[in-house]
Amino acid sequence: MRYLTAGESHGPQLTLIIDGVPSQVPFSKEQIDHQLHRRQKGHGRGRRMQIERDEIQIMSGVRFGKTTGAPIALVIENKDYTHWQKVMNPFPMQEEADKRKLTRPRPGHADLNGAIKYDHRDLRDVLERSSARETAARVAAGAFARQILALCGIEIAGHVLQIGGVKAKRILDVPLSEFVTQAEESPVRCLDPEAEQAMMKEIDDAKAEGDSIGGIVEVIVEGMPIGLGSHTQWDRKLDAKIAQAIVSINAFKGVEFGIGFEAANLRGSQVHDEIIWSKERGFTRATNRLGGFEGGMTTGEEIIVRGVMKPIPTLYKPLMSVDIDTKEEFAASIERSDSCAVPAASVVAEAVVAWEVAQALLEKFPADTVEELVAQVQRYREHTRNF
Amino acid sequence: MRYLTAGESHGPQLTLIIDGVPSQVPFSKEQIDHQLHRRQKGHGRGRRMQIERDEIQIMSGVRFGKTTGAPIALVIENKDYTHWQKVMNPFPMQEEADKRKLTRPRPGHADLNGAIKYDHRDLRDVLERSSARETAARVAAGAFARQILALCGIEIAGHVLQIGGVKAKRILDVPLSEFVTQAEESPVRCLDPEAEQAMMKEIDDAKAEGDSIGGIVEVIVEGMPIGLGSHTQWDRKLDAKIAQAIVSINAFKGVEFGIGFEAANLRGSQVHDEIIWSKERGFTRATNRLGGFEGGMTTGEEIIVRGVMKPIPTLYKPLMSVDIDTKEEFAASIERSDSCAVPAASVVAEAVVAWEVAQALLEKFPADTVEELVAQVQRYREHTRNF
Amino acid sequence: MRYLTAGESHGPQLTLIIDGVPSQVPFSKEQIDHQLHRRQKGHGRGRRMQIERDEIQIMSGVRFGKTTGAPIALVIENKDYTHWQKVMNPFPMQEEADKRKLTRPRPGHADLNGAIKYDHRDLRDVLERSSARETAARVAAGAFARQILALCGIEIAGHVLQIGGVKAKRILDVPLSEFVTQAEESPVRCLDPEAEQAMMKEIDDAKAEGDSIGGIVEVIVEGMPIGLGSHTQWDRKLDAKIAQAIVSINAFKGVEFGIGFEAANLRGSQVHDEIIWSKERGFTRATNRLGGFEGGMTTGEEIIVRGVMKPIPTLYKPLMSVDIDTKEEFAASIERSDSCAVPAASVVAEAVVAWEVAQALLEKFPADTVEELVAQVQRYREHTRNF
Amino acid sequence: MRYLTAGESHGPQLTLIIDGVPSQVPFSKEQIDHQLHRRQKGHGRGRRMQIERDEIQIMSGVRFGKTTGAPIALVIENKDYTHWQKVMNPFPMQEEADKRKLTRPRPGHADLNGAIKYDHRDLRDVLERSSARETAARVAAGAFARQILALCGIEIAGHVLQIGGVKAKRILDVPLSEFVTQAEESPVRCLDPEAEQAMMKEIDDAKAEGDSIGGIVEVIVEGMPIGLGSHTQWDRKLDAKIAQAIVSINAFKGVEFGIGFEAANLRGSQVHDEIIWSKERGFTRATNRLGGFEGGMTTGEEIIVRGVMKPIPTLYKPLMSVDIDTKEEFAASIERSDSCAVPAASVVAEAVVAWEVAQALLEKFPADTVEELVAQVQRYREHTRNF
Repeated sequence: MRYLTAGESHGPQLTLIIDGVPSQVPFSKEQIDHQLHRRQKGHGRGRRMQIERDEIQIMSGVRFGKTTGAPIALVIENKDYTHWQKVMNPFPMQEEADKRKLTRPRPGHADLNGAIKYDHRDLRDVLERSSARETAARVAAGAFARQILALCGIEIAGHVLQIGGVKAKRILDVPLSEFVTQAEESPVRCLDPEAEQAMMKEIDDAKAEGDSIGGIVEVIVEGMPIGLGSHTQWDRKLDAKIAQAIVSINAFKGVEFGIGFEAANLRGSQVHDEIIWSKERGFTRATNRLGGFEGGMTTGEEIIVRGVMKPIPTLYKPLMSVDIDTKEEFAASIERSDSCAVPAASVVAEAVVAWEVAQALLEKFPADTVEELVAQVQRYREHTRNF
Repeated sequence: MRYLTAGESHGPQLTLIIDGVPSQVPFSKEQIDHQLHRRQKGHGRGRRMQIERDEIQIMSGVRFGKTTGAPIALVIENKDYTHWQKVMNPFPMQEEADKRKLTRPRPGHADLNGAIKYDHRDLRDVLERSSARETAARVAAGAFARQILALCGIEIAGHVLQIGGVKAKRILDVPLSEFVTQAEESPVRCLDPEAEQAMMKEIDDAKAEGDSIGGIVEVIVEGMPIGLGSHTQWDRKLDAKIAQAIVSINAFKGVEFGIGFEAANLRGSQVHDEIIWSKERGFTRATNRLGGFEGGMTTGEEIIVRGVMKPIPTLYKPLMSVDIDTKEEFAASIERSDSCAVPAASVVAEAVVAWEVAQALLEKFPADTVEELVAQVQRYREHTRNF
Repeated sequence: MRYLTAGESHGPQLTLIIDGVPSQVPFSKEQIDHQLHRRQKGHGRGRRMQIERDEIQIMSGVRFGKTTGAPIALVIENKDYTHWQKVMNPFPMQEEADKRKLTRPRPGHADLNGAIKYDHRDLRDVLERSSARETAARVAAGAFARQILALCGIEIAGHVLQIGGVKAKRILDVPLSEFVTQAEESPVRCLDPEAEQAMMKEIDDAKAEGDSIGGIVEVIVEGMPIGLGSHTQWDRKLDAKIAQAIVSINAFKGVEFGIGFEAANLRGSQVHDEIIWSKERGFTRATNRLGGFEGGMTTGEEIIVRGVMKPIPTLYKPLMSVDIDTKEEFAASIERSDSCAVPAASVVAEAVVAWEVAQALLEKFPADTVEELVAQVQRYREHTRNF
Repeated sequence: MRYLTAGESHGPQLTLIIDGVPSQVPFSKEQIDHQLHRRQKGHGRGRRMQIERDEIQIMSGVRFGKTTGAPIALVIENKDYTHWQKVMNPFPMQEEADKRKLTRPRPGHADLNGAIKYDHRDLRDVLERSSARETAARVAAGAFARQILALCGIEIAGHVLQIGGVKAKRILDVPLSEFVTQAEESPVRCLDPEAEQAMMKEIDDAKAEGDSIGGIVEVIVEGMPIGLGSHTQWDRKLDAKIAQAIVSINAFKGVEFGIGFEAANLRGSQVHDEIIWSKERGFTRATNRLGGFEGGMTTGEEIIVRGVMKPIPTLYKPLMSVDIDTKEEFAASIERSDSCAVPAASVVAEAVVAWEVAQALLEKFPADTVEELVAQVQRYREHTRNF
């Protein structure tokens, strides 16, 4: 599978084409809309999330409730586009273009770099595309991937581990389904009730100060077959692909697996996961410190991956910048009003991980039809158990 | 450019093909051998690093000291192959195969996952390729990339920030060339003299205990043009590609840029890099907390990327595992004797970052000859200054 | 650049995403619509071409008349979709699905192979995507590529050389612009007035007999820089990429360059293009028998490429086939009524060649902005002249 | 799977890396060497073919007679390299470089285009790589692909249909194994004994006149599963990929499938392959005019593909050219002495088709072990029969 997204933050729509899909995948608009809606929620989101409730329109690739194998085109309309038609006009209108020109790059955004790269004198030509609005399309792609994964017994959950200085206690031994429910009920997608309250306060404080705040999200994937990815060539390692996917999310500055950066503090005897075997389950591990990967391949244990999101750069508390035309200093302008997008970002992180895992699955198992895929995954799980 | 590596740890050679190179690049075997040698050094390396001093043989793509544009094939011989010829024989020899079979998977290695995936009953069929020996080929590829980068005014340095519990003080305001020299002189590639001593002790202690130890390395890239990478599609973001490259290095469990995971603790007003302008330098930044990236594109500030390496999994202090044939428990065997490979890993990290940066450079400035590349980069730097 | 298309023949729309485009390309909806219209014309087309006049809607990537560098999403609506909403419903509707099921595969179409591959019991799940309707999206992609090429002094023309048994005389020494005009005025895109009349008669005869007819189209590209493509790796040869592009057009069964298959009949001394030189033009060729390529690279002479299109498989004069459910023989059904689509196919051929040439241009020359591209092409032409 | 080749015609070796191979493929050096030897035979080859008998050395990826899944590196030595060491020296040697410089581009070769593209003043920097010597590496890659195909019941044969003006009668109803044997016994790989004699005479005549001669080769693939390739996106059509592979062979100027260019002369009712069904074989075709493809997918009938090779451009009967330094006209020089390479080219054509088919097989049936692949193909053939 491969996908491309297109669309600006205030253009008519986001467009998504997914190519190379198996046929016969039961396609649920509800489930995709559900994921889009999850992305819009969270304590600390601004006005825009209220005015538009995202949903997909299916433009191709699905018929009578199932994929056909043809490319899937999905559209997510931008519901306030009517107010932006002049600003976002695709046709030549010099007067309008001059009037609407943005020349004040915001620190922390792609505005300046993108303008220099593509030689734009109107920064809107960059920021409309660099906006995190695009992640809605990626969530849709991931939501489709999840439908394939679910048929193969693979489930994905995400939650928030830290917002600002507030760290959640690590909750152990909660089954994944319970985990999902609890995260869903929390306004900050946090399973630790104490931390949850403190996180909300932290967000409110930051907002009151005209500031913004970031955090750490974690994604867990359960039900992995052993041996997705490959050790044989560097660009086929699955953990590395997931690292790319996570860091490609807007505002993410780092990624780690299992014990992650903590590995620097530990001895080898404290880090590795001992191998055990039982007749019923075959080979498994006593622990899962490595987050489900050895040699760039899945170990069969849960994938555990975390990403760090920097605070949203658009603030009431301004940062200094320089106008690209006048070269005058100014205090950077505000484009929108979220003070914390970490809970939403955890939904995006789930989506991009789902995509990479589904992709790896389809690279290992035959899948012109989802039945072939499911059957082969089952056969392989049998092989694994009997190895 | 693209490259493939091939070769086993105890096979006759590592093979590297680099395709799509510009012509007229002055090709220095010395510089590549120098990088290979750097990878072999470092306090804590075992015996093998002494017995073989890696060097390349040039098999194609270079003539009279310059690249021709044709694919470059480089070979790095494994100097102790003569002792391994029977074990690594490519021809059918059932008796030998049976005699030499390894059936005891080591925790922390690709042994078990790889064997299940590729259905091997002899774990050597996995471990020979999953070995970090392969990184020598990646260092060679990166060393070639560095030669291109240097012509474009881009320099790369790496150093060690942490080994075990010992963290180096951050050394500021050292020019990059000085930085490189100091790192080179340190047996652990650390610039902080106090930390350096403590790191060596930490390594010796771990070794004495039959244990191993990991750490954190940092790579810095200076002289970046603004706007490498692109915000326009998720898979074109350069920081994300570098994240993939770092995590793909054997034993790396995480990666971060600039303030990295610390971003979770800070407010937006503390995180972003204010924009300044001067006639001489054009747009620059007051700080570089974001590690040289906004929107997946370079800001022109130094790229600052860190990776964490877990302790080497092969230990004298054994971990429990299970024989794949007998299903009996055993204490995991020792394949080699390094107790810490972090200094060497910092050299590999430099190499893979160099490759990604060179790749991004050639994607922004496609060029069949290196002169065209250099001229384009100069023109673009002019454009940037005058923007 | 890369693109994906999506969309069924009777679905709501075709969707096209073009990614990796230079910024600042003047974007002309008129020119793209013009190319779409050209594809719909031609003696021998059936009813559908009259009822819908294709045009694009611009959904992203273009602002105030220029590309921004962001992905371009274009939509071509299927104007009779209202009549097909039930048949093409994306939601589960078992009754409707059963009622509408097609079980009779048409020889010469993808129906049967596609159904077996993707395990469809309703052949519509294949034929809606395998339909040549998809070429409208490819024409749009090619029309955009042409706008880039035109800025670099590269022009493309196509015409029809043969329909059924009627071969056009080769018209020599017509300037390309004249060539384009004449082809445009001909109902069969043929420059030879005698052949044109005979071709129309051939089409009418075939139609009268309930049969269909194919032919040969030629595409000519003028203004090529020397050295697009590369001899250095097999998958970088430009002629080979164009061959893939041509054969990928629905119903195309072959492709040839310059003298093409005639080369088998000739001696080496009759085939190769002697090299000449003048101070004004630098190196050129005395002839262009090789159709603009040596070693997979452009010679600077016109690219001359021909493709052969088989007769449209859907006929009044039926072919025998077998129902996939009942296994009963039947005479293959008629889906639509064109008897000859060769003139239209020549427009598609122009488009796919335009795309490959633009792609090769962007792989050789830096092009985040079209100004950089144009400037670098000019510099390179200068280099070529002075070589 | 993917592969890269490297190596010059007179350098030390050709190098081939094949990545992404299934494990457990029985690897036969003999079979690969056999294919390399076939490429060196044929009436009309010059001296070089006698002096060096190509064979592979296995440098990685194979152990005890089977693939491990790791990348395979193969080396083919150039046996007369000892005489070329000075000319092909990778190290800077200005004097030698000046002395050895070639400045006279040969029409019909990549010499001039490549030199302008890569800015070489010594044409050897182009011609060493553009030489058809590289096809030896592609034959090795194809020979490995054939071993995978054979395990899946897919066999490949090639033969020569035309040399110069001499066309072979089409031999029908010969089983493929017989076909292979007969082609092998013919000095021009032609099954028609009369044509064979005439072809040899044609070659001798051309040689006597100091001229060269081309021809047409055909490749046949038997045992195809239905539905390799895909109609769903243009770049996934298998016939189009094979077209690219064929045209990428040195000196090939065209490609066609089944009736190919003849399709232009026929009516639809004469072109398409009627569908039949039997309980034993499932769906098959009454004829195979389309050469095994509909909608870019295999029909299950034999793949029939032909390519045309132009006469070798290096001749005793010289063509006019111009020195790139002096700008003086000259009669183009002779680099080697084959007068006809069509029989050898048919072996290369088999190899590149084998690669594309194996690639398509692994895309439809991704498999980490060859047993999984074989089992999947068998299951799918069952599905096909019962469809």
